[in-house]
Amino acid sequence: MNFLSDTNPGETLSQIRKNSPLIWNISNFVSMDIAANALLAFGASPAMAHAIEEAESFSQICKSINGALTINIGTFDKYWQECAIKVANEANKYEIPWVLDPVGAGASQFRNKNASELLKLKPTVLRGNASEIISISNNEEGGKGVDSTSSSNEALDAAKSIASQYQILVAVTGEVDYVTDGTKTLSIHGGNIMMTKVTATGCALTCLIGAGLTTNQERMSSTANVMGIYSLAAEIACNNCEGPGSLKTKFLDTLYNISPKYVNEEIKISKI
Amino acid sequence: MNFLSDTNPGETLSQIRKNSPLIWNISNFVSMDIAANALLAFGASPAMAHAIEEAESFSQICKSINGALTINIGTFDKYWQECAIKVANEANKYEIPWVLDPVGAGASQFRNKNASELLKLKPTVLRGNASEIISISNNEEGGKGVDSTSSSNEALDAAKSIASQYQILVAVTGEVDYVTDGTKTLSIHGGNIMMTKVTATGCALTCLIGAGLTTNQERMSSTANVMGIYSLAAEIACNNCEGPGSLKTKFLDTLYNISPKYVNEEIKISKI
Amino acid sequence: MNFLSDTNPGETLSQIRKNSPLIWNISNFVSMDIAANALLAFGASPAMAHAIEEAESFSQICKSINGALTINIGTFDKYWQECAIKVANEANKYEIPWVLDPVGAGASQFRNKNASELLKLKPTVLRGNASEIISISNNEEGGKGVDSTSSSNEALDAAKSIASQYQILVAVTGEVDYVTDGTKTLSIHGGNIMMTKVTATGCALTCLIGAGLTTNQERMSSTANVMGIYSLAAEIACNNCEGPGSLKTKFLDTLYNISPKYVNEEIKISKI
Repeated sequence: MNFLSDTNPGETLSQIRKNSPLIWNISNFVSMDIAANALLAFGASPAMAHAIEEAESFSQICKSINGALTINIGTFDKYWQECAIKVANEANKYEIPWVLDPVGAGASQFRNKNASELLKLKPTVLRGNASEIISISNNEEGGKGVDSTSSSNEALDAAKSIASQYQILVAVTGEVDYVTDGTKTLSIHGGNIMMTKVTATGCALTCLIGAGLTTNQERMSSTANVMGIYSLAAEIACNNCEGPGSLKTKFLDTLYNISPKYVNEEIKISKI
Repeated sequence: MNFLSDTNPGETLSQIRKNSPLIWNISNFVSMDIAANALLAFGASPAMAHAIEEAESFSQICKSINGALTINIGTFDKYWQECAIKVANEANKYEIPWVLDPVGAGASQFRNKNASELLKLKPTVLRGNASEIISISNNEEGGKGVDSTSSSNEALDAAKSIASQYQILVAVTGEVDYVTDGTKTLSIHGGNIMMTKVTATGCALTCLIGAGLTTNQERMSSTANVMGIYSLAAEIACNNCEGPGSLKTKFLDTLYNISPKYVNEEIKISKI
Repeated sequence: MNFLSDTNPGETLSQIRKNSPLIWNISNFVSMDIAANALLAFGASPAMAHAIEEAESFSQICKSINGALTINIGTFDKYWQECAIKVANEANKYEIPWVLDPVGAGASQFRNKNASELLKLKPTVLRGNASEIISISNNEEGGKGVDSTSSSNEALDAAKSIASQYQILVAVTGEVDYVTDGTKTLSIHGGNIMMTKVTATGCALTCLIGAGLTTNQERMSSTANVMGIYSLAAEIACNNCEGPGSLKTKFLDTLYNISPKYVNEEIKISKI
C-alpha cells in the first residue's frame, strides 16, 4: 500500500463506477474519440457539446446531476474559443468543477491567449505537460519565472507558481506526475513513456480528472488518485502490448477491468 | 432460423457487400471514426462531407448511384445545423433515403429544435435510444404523451406515436430493439449492454441502417435486418473481448467476417 | 534487397525516428486520429492546428525546427478552406515542405476548387488515389486529358501530366503505387487491398510522406521510401489481422516495430 492515509484511490474509482457522473467536454477534434472511450471505460458518462446555443442547458444539467466540465484548447478556432469562455463562466456561476487542458500552450500567441483567458476564470484543476505548464508560468504577468535546473523541477516550480497565483490545483504530467495547490504537493509515480506514442492520452487524463472531481473526496486527493489509476493502467497496458496500436486497446480494457482493491495495493502517491 | 419469412437479413448483408453503396454522413466529431470504419467493415462506402457548398453535388451523386444519407445531430453548431436542413431537403427532392440520429435529444432546447426541424422533413428512418425517442415524443405538438409503466414499453409507445404522426419508420434501441411504422412493429433481440461502453456505437448503427436502405428490400425489413446483424456482431464481439478497447476492434472484425448464412441462422426478429 | 541504390528506405526511417520531426497537419475530422497515431508510431511528432489566427506561429515553428506541413481537404468548409490557402502560402514563404491530399477530388465543384487552388500553390508532393489524381488531371486547364486503357496507366499518366505542369512530385496510390516528377518515375510494390477497409489510411500515408520530406534525402526518394515502408507495414498487418478492426491496431504496431534493416531487405522500389 503506497497511498496516503488521506487519499483512497480505490474509493475514487468505486464512486465513479457507481455514480456514472456526466462529464461534459469541450474537447478537441483529435482527442474526442479516446477521451469519450476512456471516460466510458472508467465508468463515467461523456458528453461532447460545443455549441454556444446549448451551453446554458448543459451547465444546468451538470449542476443538477453533479457532473463536471473539461475544456481542451487543442483545436480551438474563433468559434470554439468564444464558446469555451462562455462555458467556463457558466461553470463558475453554477459551481461546476472544471478542468482546463492548455494543449500546445507556448506554440502560438493564439494558444497562449486562450490558455490565459481561461486560466483567469480559475479552473478547479489546470492539467498540462511540463512544457505547457512552464510556458504558461513564463507568460503570466506576475509569474515569477522559473530557475530550476532540471526540467522536472522546473515544471513543478511552474505548477506551484500558477497554483499560488490563481488559487487553483495544477496537475503536471511527465516522468513523475505532480498535483499541487502551491503549498502542498503530491507526487504520483508510475506510467510509461510509451503512452506518449498514442495521441491524446493526456487529453483523456484531463477528462478522467474531471470525473474524479465529482466524487465526495477532497479535490487534490481525487485528482492524485485519478492520476495514479491512470498511471497504473498505463503501466499494465504498456507491459502487455506490442506497440502503440495495441497499447490504446489494452489501456481502455485495463481502465475498465482494474479493481479498487488492486489500485489501493499498487498505487504510488507521496507527499513531497 | 428466427427471422420472419418476409425478412432476409443474409440477403441484406449480401446486397450491401455486393453493391458497396455510398453512404453520405453528416456525422458528429466523435462518431466519424467508428461510423466510417463500421460502414467499411459492413461492405459500404462512407463519405463524410458537411460543407453547404457541396451539398448539392453529394445529393446528386447519392441519387445517381443509389446511395443513402445519414444525419447525426450530436455535435451540431449553427453551421452544421444550416447544412443539415439544406441536405435533408435535397434528400427529399432527390428521393434519397435518409436516417436521422437525434443524439442527445432532450438535453437542450438547441438539440430539441434540431431534432424537431429535421423530423418535420420526414427522414426515412428515425433511429435513437429510448430516452431520445421518448424526449422527442414528449416535445412534439400533437404527441400524445407517454404513460407506459416500463421504460421499454414507454420507448416503444413513443416510437409508434412518432412513426404514426410523421408516417416514417422509427427504430429505437435498448435492451430489446424495435422498428415500427406506427402500426406494424418488429422486435430484434440480442446485443449486449457492454456495447454502451464504446462511444458512438449507436451512431454507427444509424449509418449501417442507411446502408440497408439502399437494398431492394422493403424498408422496415431491411432496417430490422441491419439491427439484427449489428446485435449479432455485438454479441459475438462482447463474448470475445477483454474490455471496451478490444470490443471495438472485435466488433469491426466481426462485422467484416460475419456470413449471410450465419446471420440467417442466428438472428432473432419477431413481429409483435 | 529491392531498393534502388540511390534510395535508402531504412535511412529514411532511422532519420525520422532520430529527429522526431514536427509534422503540422491541416487534417480532416475523420483522419485526425489515425494520422496522429501513425505519425507517432512512425517516430514523428504530429500537431493538428487549423485556426487561421495561429497559422503564422506554426509556420515559424515548422521553419525553425525543420518540420513539414500536410493539408487534407477531406472535410473542408469555408473556414478551413481559407485557413488552408493562408497556410500553404506561408509554407511557401518559409520554404516548408508540404504535402497536399485532395480527398474526394471529383466529387464536387467545391472539392475541385479547393484542390485546384492549393495545387496552384505548388505543394512539394501531391498524394492521392487513382480517381482523385485522374479527376484533377482532367479538370486542370492545360491538362492533356488521359487516354490510357488501364486505370493504373491512366492514373500514372495523369500523375505525370500534373507533375510536369506544376513542377511538383505526384504520388498516386493503388494496386501499384507511383511517385513521379513527370519525367522520372518510381514504382512501389506491395500493400494490401484490405487497407482500404480502414478509414483514412491514405490520409495517414500523406502525413507520413510529410515526415519523409524532413530527412536530408532527395525528395522523390524519401517519398518512395515512405510509401514502401507503409506498404510493407500494411502487408505485415494484413497478414496478421482478423479483420479491419485488428488491422488498424496491427498496422500501428508494425509501423512502430519495423526495423530499418528489415525495410531495406524487403522493400520493392523500381525505376520505370
